[in-house]
Amino acid sequence: MDASLINPFIKATLNVISTMSNINPKAGKPTVKTSSDAWGIVTGVIGMAGQDVMGNLVISFDEASILEIVSAMLMENFQDINQDVVDAVGEITNMICGGAKKDLSELGLHIEMATPVMMIGKGLELAQFSKAPVISLQFLTQKGAFVVESNLSRRS
Amino acid sequence: MDASLINPFIKATLNVISTMSNINPKAGKPTVKTSSDAWGIVTGVIGMAGQDVMGNLVISFDEASILEIVSAMLMENFQDINQDVVDAVGEITNMICGGAKKDLSELGLHIEMATPVMMIGKGLELAQFSKAPVISLQFLTQKGAFVVESNLSRRS
Repeated sequence: MDASLINPFIKATLNVISTMSNINPKAGKPTVKTSSDAWGIVTGVIGMAGQDVMGNLVISFDEASILEIVSAMLMENFQDINQDVVDAVGEITNMICGGAKKDLSELGLHIEMATPVMMIGKGLELAQFSKAPVISLQFLTQKGAFVVESNLSRRS
Repeated sequence: MDASLINPFIKATLNVISTMSNINPKAGKPTVKTSSDAWGIVTGVIGMAGQDVMGNLVISFDEASILEIVSAMLMENFQDINQDVVDAVGEITNMICGGAKKDLSELGLHIEMATPVMMIGKGLELAQFSKAPVISLQFLTQKGAFVVESNLSRRS
């Protein structure tokens, strides 16, 4: 993945989370992911596909961060990963990808978005079938953390 | 999902599995999926995105069917879901989607493909964030079974 391709995802993540929940996560530094675990307890994945680029956006939340974010988004105190929380992960995944799509387009990279899938469970294995490196960023909220990963890359 | 959109996936599944492994699976009847489980023990997901349509292709294998197929594909006796088997699921997912893409294009529906992700583990929850119904088809091999699911639908 071109390092320049990660910035639209960082910007969109900060925008979407703060707009939806009034929570301002702190972004860590991008790293290259070497493991194939899903990181968190609930994970959204959305495919991105254009004539020139392809890949996935993955967003994986620990329990504390997603309950904090969705409770603030929906103004209700969620204590378990229930259907509403899982749907909110789909919505967040979609919105972050939509925000990044706009900025990628300004870089001349046009993508269309597939629809999100959400995986629930601890210690899941999630592998990517792609030669492109997976760039991973951790974000801290007050109560927990989540990661945003992308392997978006130019078609060879 | 338009019922007419499922046929390219059935045809591509039969083509890819028989070409790659010389195994000829028997296709069941399409049903609408109502649960949100991942069905099998190893599952490939690939996003599909075009200007007019969007969705995911999901292929989930039980242990017996994927070991049978990959053993035949790679002419080696696989007894566990190891990295080679997981990579083969990615390859199969990619090839089935590529085959369906060609036929969908002849129906006037142009998609670009994202890259596959593979999830490993029994009893995983896998939910779709999409209003389109998920059409599911079970395929039987000599030793096991797998399912192919798609929620490809027109953008509203």
